[in-house]
Amino acid sequence: MTTKTSVHRIFNFSAGPAILPLSVVEEAQRDLVSLPGVGLSVLEISHRSKPFERILQEATADIRALAGIPDDYHVLFLQGGASLQFAMVPMNLIPPGGEADYIVTGTWSQKAVKEAARVGTVHVAASTQSENFTRIPRPDEIRLSGRGAYVHATSNNTIYGTEWREIPNVGDRPLVVDASSNIFSGPLDVARHALIYAGAQKNLGPAGVTLVIIRDDIARRSPSSIPTMLSYATHADNNSLYNTPPAFAIYVVGLVAKWLRREGGLEAIGRRNERKASQLYAEIDRTDFYRGHAQPESRSLMNVTFRLPSEALEKTFVADATAEGLDGLKGHRSVGGIRASIYNAFPEEGVDALAAFMREFERSHG
Amino acid sequence: MTTKTSVHRIFNFSAGPAILPLSVVEEAQRDLVSLPGVGLSVLEISHRSKPFERILQEATADIRALAGIPDDYHVLFLQGGASLQFAMVPMNLIPPGGEADYIVTGTWSQKAVKEAARVGTVHVAASTQSENFTRIPRPDEIRLSGRGAYVHATSNNTIYGTEWREIPNVGDRPLVVDASSNIFSGPLDVARHALIYAGAQKNLGPAGVTLVIIRDDIARRSPSSIPTMLSYATHADNNSLYNTPPAFAIYVVGLVAKWLRREGGLEAIGRRNERKASQLYAEIDRTDFYRGHAQPESRSLMNVTFRLPSEALEKTFVADATAEGLDGLKGHRSVGGIRASIYNAFPEEGVDALAAFMREFERSHG
Repeated sequence: MTTKTSVHRIFNFSAGPAILPLSVVEEAQRDLVSLPGVGLSVLEISHRSKPFERILQEATADIRALAGIPDDYHVLFLQGGASLQFAMVPMNLIPPGGEADYIVTGTWSQKAVKEAARVGTVHVAASTQSENFTRIPRPDEIRLSGRGAYVHATSNNTIYGTEWREIPNVGDRPLVVDASSNIFSGPLDVARHALIYAGAQKNLGPAGVTLVIIRDDIARRSPSSIPTMLSYATHADNNSLYNTPPAFAIYVVGLVAKWLRREGGLEAIGRRNERKASQLYAEIDRTDFYRGHAQPESRSLMNVTFRLPSEALEKTFVADATAEGLDGLKGHRSVGGIRASIYNAFPEEGVDALAAFMREFERSHG
Repeated sequence: MTTKTSVHRIFNFSAGPAILPLSVVEEAQRDLVSLPGVGLSVLEISHRSKPFERILQEATADIRALAGIPDDYHVLFLQGGASLQFAMVPMNLIPPGGEADYIVTGTWSQKAVKEAARVGTVHVAASTQSENFTRIPRPDEIRLSGRGAYVHATSNNTIYGTEWREIPNVGDRPLVVDASSNIFSGPLDVARHALIYAGAQKNLGPAGVTLVIIRDDIARRSPSSIPTMLSYATHADNNSLYNTPPAFAIYVVGLVAKWLRREGGLEAIGRRNERKASQLYAEIDRTDFYRGHAQPESRSLMNVTFRLPSEALEKTFVADATAEGLDGLKGHRSVGGIRASIYNAFPEEGVDALAAFMREFERSHG
């Protein structure tokens, strides 16, 4: 493509919406005015048309193949992001007068708790809030109520840079996971989950579509009293076509799923993510100049959070990095400092560039 | 652009997602890999970044200027389409034990009624269902309950090809309008509405974003008990940035708003839409071979619905038209026959082509 060499692109460490594979963006660009063999833009085609049906089917099939999703799970493309899932999960799954268990590992877990508490009783099964969410709870710290309709967990905590390294053991309770910030970043045992949801804009595609992977018996629990659009049963029964879906975002998610398969699938991408994160954590561990926020055993492969000796130095770090084309490194205000988000599509050269920048910055300011 | 001459594009009569201005799609294509001056794709930039803030501000400002939206109205970009608005409107606006008036002019009005009935009492103020929705109710047919928290109407009925030519007179009751299929197709007196909502995918942009124009005092009625994401107050207070918005869809809506302003604004586009629709209705009125579904006084400028002497001829009509690059003309099953959707972005050449095809088809099959 002629655009490849002519456009200026920088390294995007944004926590989300986040970087996409360049080949995906280039394919979307090439076909944006006219889908090959269709003669219309993907932005314009009817969601009931054959070309869109094929796009939806292929995206679903590629996601199923990628994550080895069992046949009794639906793959749904919804709207509203994880924030709307925070409400949909309890509205669909907590029975009248019922309760649910929540494991609280950060701001997003807390928001999920807040919405569930409008619907039923929330039992906080574990929380690391008193330690400013620097770690994931140990298995022995998780105390389930025994009466919860499900157990909710956040698999990766973008703000704090912590991540579950193993799926929490919840026995026979249905496990519901907000995987917005690490979905498909490594192998995934779908069968151990009742429901997985993820806003697309970190590891899957552009903002505007939410992937929901839900076991059929769980989708059947939706009470008929809730709004039609908020019922998992509605979307499962209509294969995400109850109303007009976010067609373009689904199309791009499909391209990303194909890219992940071409890259070798979840095992391969998981190894690459380990390599990328290790390189940055090695820079942090090498010196006292950088201090990681997350406890080592809870470190995220997606979001690497660290502090510098002073806030003034942190400001200089972000400004100098931006000037060198390393964009989006400012940490969230809850943690401060630096956050490097290095999702699936973030290239290894960008990690090399940041590691080199960290060494050089320490040398000149340490 | 080199793509302009090399790509194959057809005339898209789809009811929605529907045609976009070619210049808008070409601009989106040109900048898709790297927004000028940014170095990242609009698919990848943080919704908290300066470039996206500018996109959101410009889209809002262009929409405000285009429709002369008074200062006490919010312009919001939400998700979930009109289908989610069917639930949000009553959840936000019907008080406990309260009721609302609904004017029923088609399938979409009926769906809105169904969702409102989960929340409160629905008073059907008028309905043309017994006439298969061939017309809009006359002013003297509308009987308001007098106790409704608002009056809901559907301004254009895609399936039936009917449209309100004047805003329904509801006295001092707040008027809520689903304008999904004719928003910005002509002059709009926003001040006579309490709330206007529209899925973008017909006249505004791609699927995946819903425009909501809401008066501030109406947005303040949201009860704190409803899910955060379903509260108009949430989105009004956060300027559509409570959570990650559908950034790309908003960007394209912004480009469409700029295009509408360049084309001369709503007066000019309204005159063009009158011209386009008149040309097709003239073909229908010229002969008994074609029979319009909508009563003449209720005819839509957006969706022209008509029948042929037999279903067999209708099938041939659609097949032959498709072969000539006139796509998406099959009518909805509730009406049958033909539906030509000719939204704002549908070009006059396409209307000329369909009119010529109608004459030729009648000549060879009449």
